[in-house]
Amino acid sequence: MKKTSEAVCARMKRELRYFNFLSEGDFPNLAEYFDCRQVDAEEVVWHEGDPCDYLAFIVEGRLEIKKATEFEGKEIVLGVYSEGAVAGELCFLDGSERAVTAVSLEDTSLLILSRENFDRLMEAHPVLGNKLLKGMLLAVSTRLRKSFERLAAIF
Amino acid sequence: MKKTSEAVCARMKRELRYFNFLSEGDFPNLAEYFDCRQVDAEEVVWHEGDPCDYLAFIVEGRLEIKKATEFEGKEIVLGVYSEGAVAGELCFLDGSERAVTAVSLEDTSLLILSRENFDRLMEAHPVLGNKLLKGMLLAVSTRLRKSFERLAAIF
Repeated sequence: MKKTSEAVCARMKRELRYFNFLSEGDFPNLAEYFDCRQVDAEEVVWHEGDPCDYLAFIVEGRLEIKKATEFEGKEIVLGVYSEGAVAGELCFLDGSERAVTAVSLEDTSLLILSRENFDRLMEAHPVLGNKLLKGMLLAVSTRLRKSFERLAAIF
Repeated sequence: MKKTSEAVCARMKRELRYFNFLSEGDFPNLAEYFDCRQVDAEEVVWHEGDPCDYLAFIVEGRLEIKKATEFEGKEIVLGVYSEGAVAGELCFLDGSERAVTAVSLEDTSLLILSRENFDRLMEAHPVLGNKLLKGMLLAVSTRLRKSFERLAAIF
């Protein structure tokens, strides 16, 4: 992961307003809490077992989310997250290690919210924090629902 | 589902402070937003496909969460939620229909948070609303992680 230029970062942060749980007016208040990162195609953003200290919001590109199975070298793809999606939320709140591996499928731009900035944001802007949490909860609920459907389709 | 007496309800609401994301001082502010319900053993609390207009916090007892498979009459059990757990959150934010069926395994006491009261609570107590959302997000994340593990164990 590499940092982006300030100009690219400013443009990326403006994309925050397109995240479905935010509105136009939220973006200026949010911008200062996010960092910008670029990831090359096929780069591992994090490995299963890594420390979990930030959330990643996908502005451009796609991340494949996968997990090792008991068969060495075999992984199961659990999802492909694209623009407007949040990644890294599984372990973020309880500080456990990364539960899945995230790999970029193409050149990908991420807005990073560190735990420290997340806490600062919740403290300074509770109403905005509320919107962010609702958006994350909606995303995770949708994924759990899909995962339940997948399990129901197997048995 | 039947309503409880006022005395039982007051006692049930005091249990809110034991939900892991809340603290003792939060409970008086929260109480007015919740309703109390009793469910008999083996009662269906909601069916897959029902409208989704409330969250249920389990104060006592257990709910089995299941989903129909493509084989008629065959269901897959996706989880058993017990005291201190939230149920009904999968569809709550997007207003879709119930994605799973919830059945009580024994006599169960539930604190109900309707959509209307949820919205009122978020508006009146954003910091408390934040705690509630964080607690729900943590619960759903943990379930998604377990569901991913289950999927990885199958393939």
